Amino acid sequence: MKTKLFTFHLFFMMSLVFVAAQETKLTRISVDGNKFVNAQNETIVFKGINIADPDRLEKLGQWKKVLFEELNRWGANIVRFPVHPIAWRERGEEEYLKLLDQGIQWAKESGLYVIIDWHSIGNLRTGLFQAPMYDTSIRETLRFWYTVSRRYADEPAVALYEIFNEPTTFNNQLGSLSWSQWTEIVTDIITVIKANNPHAVMLVAGFNWAYDLTPVMHSPLPFDNIAYVSHPYPQKREQPWVPQWERDFGFVADNYPVIATEIGYMYPDQKGAHIPCLGDEEYGRTIMDYFDSKGISWVAWVFDPDWSPQLIKDWNYTPTRAGTFFKNEMLKR
Amino acid sequence: MKTKLFTFHLFFMMSLVFVAAQETKLTRISVDGNKFVNAQNETIVFKGINIADPDRLEKLGQWKKVLFEELNRWGANIVRFPVHPIAWRERGEEEYLKLLDQGIQWAKESGLYVIIDWHSIGNLRTGLFQAPMYDTSIRETLRFWYTVSRRYADEPAVALYEIFNEPTTFNNQLGSLSWSQWTEIVTDIITVIKANNPHAVMLVAGFNWAYDLTPVMHSPLPFDNIAYVSHPYPQKREQPWVPQWERDFGFVADNYPVIATEIGYMYPDQKGAHIPCLGDEEYGRTIMDYFDSKGISWVAWVFDPDWSPQLIKDWNYTPTRAGTFFKNEMLKR
Amino acid sequence: MKTKLFTFHLFFMMSLVFVAAQETKLTRISVDGNKFVNAQNETIVFKGINIADPDRLEKLGQWKKVLFEELNRWGANIVRFPVHPIAWRERGEEEYLKLLDQGIQWAKESGLYVIIDWHSIGNLRTGLFQAPMYDTSIRETLRFWYTVSRRYADEPAVALYEIFNEPTTFNNQLGSLSWSQWTEIVTDIITVIKANNPHAVMLVAGFNWAYDLTPVMHSPLPFDNIAYVSHPYPQKREQPWVPQWERDFGFVADNYPVIATEIGYMYPDQKGAHIPCLGDEEYGRTIMDYFDSKGISWVAWVFDPDWSPQLIKDWNYTPTRAGTFFKNEMLKR
Ligand SMILES: [Mg+2]
Ligand SMILES: [Mg+2]
Ligand SMILES: [Mg+2]
Ligand SMILES: [Mg+2]
Ligand SMILES: [Mg+2]
Repeated sequence: MKTKLFTFHLFFMMSLVFVAAQETKLTRISVDGNKFVNAQNETIVFKGINIADPDRLEKLGQWKKVLFEELNRWGANIVRFPVHPIAWRERGEEEYLKLLDQGIQWAKESGLYVIIDWHSIGNLRTGLFQAPMYDTSIRETLRFWYTVSRRYADEPAVALYEIFNEPTTFNNQLGSLSWSQWTEIVTDIITVIKANNPHAVMLVAGFNWAYDLTPVMHSPLPFDNIAYVSHPYPQKREQPWVPQWERDFGFVADNYPVIATEIGYMYPDQKGAHIPCLGDEEYGRTIMDYFDSKGISWVAWVFDPDWSPQLIKDWNYTPTRAGTFFKNEMLKR
Repeated sequence: MKTKLFTFHLFFMMSLVFVAAQETKLTRISVDGNKFVNAQNETIVFKGINIADPDRLEKLGQWKKVLFEELNRWGANIVRFPVHPIAWRERGEEEYLKLLDQGIQWAKESGLYVIIDWHSIGNLRTGLFQAPMYDTSIRETLRFWYTVSRRYADEPAVALYEIFNEPTTFNNQLGSLSWSQWTEIVTDIITVIKANNPHAVMLVAGFNWAYDLTPVMHSPLPFDNIAYVSHPYPQKREQPWVPQWERDFGFVADNYPVIATEIGYMYPDQKGAHIPCLGDEEYGRTIMDYFDSKGISWVAWVFDPDWSPQLIKDWNYTPTRAGTFFKNEMLKR
Repeated sequence: MKTKLFTFHLFFMMSLVFVAAQETKLTRISVDGNKFVNAQNETIVFKGINIADPDRLEKLGQWKKVLFEELNRWGANIVRFPVHPIAWRERGEEEYLKLLDQGIQWAKESGLYVIIDWHSIGNLRTGLFQAPMYDTSIRETLRFWYTVSRRYADEPAVALYEIFNEPTTFNNQLGSLSWSQWTEIVTDIITVIKANNPHAVMLVAGFNWAYDLTPVMHSPLPFDNIAYVSHPYPQKREQPWVPQWERDFGFVADNYPVIATEIGYMYPDQKGAHIPCLGDEEYGRTIMDYFDSKGISWVAWVFDPDWSPQLIKDWNYTPTRAGTFFKNEMLKR
């Protein structure tokens, strides 16, 4: 009996020390007005990096701690995990969760918060999506969030739950979706996440592939701990960009935290170059200045030499021009 | 031609005799005001026993006529078949129906009416359930009832169709469900059952794992041949129980038949002991007296040595303390 | 560079010639008032034939160009392809599309327009259908039309998109379905088809196995390029037929194109004889006269010696009595 108690005490004390060490670095994030704040009530502006789907990285042999150490060296304070529904299903929930557990641990060890992003593109109401890898359903989405929000309810490093990557009807090719239909679905998801994880901060995207937040002007969601998402790639609008960004999503930052969970650019001759991602450092500087002026957080897309727009040229993590640009921006902090 | 006619007449007469013999025992049940009545318009108060899922019993080698004969010796007038969605899918509809056919025949031979219970627990609207064995969908539930209600439309021994065992949101962890959302789903199920089996009597449960019927006060279902269900296990409320039972579900018995399709209790040291099932004979006597005073029917959970709270200790049907208690109650009739 | 350009020009000119040759025969169909018109604004009354499911024909070795040449010899100007959901799933989308591509090419070569018909029977809202071969879902139906409408957006020979063969509740045995619930589903389907194929002409059926169009009186669909469908088999109504046809579906032809995508009859002693298809030439002559007077298009069911009512006795295409009747009607043009 005595031995057992002693062991328990030792283990308990070690846990406390360990937790304390982490807590000073990555305390729980919540929403305060239009800011993200940590447990010390310090405002946090997130500047970070999208990695590829952990399932892809594991298959490539690139799912390893040094990846996260490199993100830390680039100055990131957050990393986004885009979980593709097809990967979640094919690997299986249990095996996929092991990847997430591991990635979250590595992220913490490198001082990085984590965004878990349900990486679908399309119309969740009609069940039509942009490509088979994005296929899912309302039910699968609810089950994903039920599972994930319970599992990380006590893990403050999992800072942000991004409900659905890019809602789009593709000009009704994927069927119609009104803002009220969309927020009805989002409300069901938020209800499940909040019941299983009362402190969760949830990210909500708007239409046009997560670009357009104009309906938030008159119809914001009636929940606390909500932040809004935009993906303002270069060709979403023609120049001059700033007044249009302000009208389309930036105004939301006056009342709620806003985070651009995808930004990036590439040159027309780069591998995988496609609209709306064509751009250069003029885009980069303009959007950095705009975000600074508004306190908008951002996450560059994507730390992969094949997915585009690329931040790295190879698995030695050699930066592309956009990679160098965003790395310098993160290191300015 | 003549031979054929003769055979037909003989067969027809034998059928009549056979049916008549049965009919005197188990005539069709319907709802008359707040009572269950048989074809002779006699009031029937059901007192019976839950068996395990027929699929489980078959796999254990315990799916046999003597089981039903034993229930008869205990004084039961009804037996409840909890059909788990996972068993329905895995055995396959056709094979599962053979089990039901057989069990209904054995029940009739022992003078027992049958409740067919779609044994899911959770939120049918969102598709989130308490455990994988309860997973189903609105569509599968409708198809189950389509199939089952057609098959037993002419079988009066199948007295009660229990639409969905235990609706619960688990405090919103399984998503939200309003009474009007629930009754919309129930209305679709009732519509299918009534169209395929116009005489069916359907059992409808409320929230909180089929405990709470308070919304029936103001929003009962607008159908005939409906009865309501509660599962008032001991810890659903603290003592004193009776005024709370009256407020939570018992008041419904003033206007509709009420049947507690699950009741039971067990001691904290019994195998599988869990809240809300911990209790003793004080619970047993209190609820029996309350049900007697209200004319509420009941079915004890569960005739299995492993599922809890147990009514039997082994497959020789040796009663547990709760088993002895409910057996004596049934034999009082 | 020059060689390349030359090749391009040659190819381009050849394409033009090829397209032009086809275009004079089968130009794009659209709706003008209560008429189908071609690109020359000529009114087209369709008179044609249902073949069996292309999947079935391929399995029987009957999927071949001579089939379409025979339909041409019978005087048909349109052929209907009934795509059963079970065949679409089991053959797989990619392989099934190859059948459709081939059939559409053969139809064009024989001067026949094509109706693509999603051949389900039942209640799309509840997910209950008349038999397993008709099982589908709203999502699968939307995906089918997404795929098909994109693929044939530039193929004018695919004249008509028949959204759902026969909506029916089977007297509520398949659950209830109001006209407003039905048109909400149809609106989602139409939205998808129109966004992927702006010129598509869509066929919408009413209840009672696509017989009853009475709700169109007060609640037509608010879209252009819509036509309505009825399947007035002989026993849908008792004689005299004409006033009932007028009240039940024919009145719609005063404002919209109407096409009876299934008509037919058979004698009680024919293989597969069943209600509501029992009839004779009296039915045939009555309905031909009625359709002529209203400008209603029609497609006879079915060019198969086994599916009933049969138009042919064998795979030498020997006409049945009904086959002879409808062949003569088509050749009158
Ligand atoms: Mg993107
Ligand atoms: Mg509940
Ligand atoms: Mg229970
Ligand atoms: Mg109908
Ligand atoms: Mg038909």
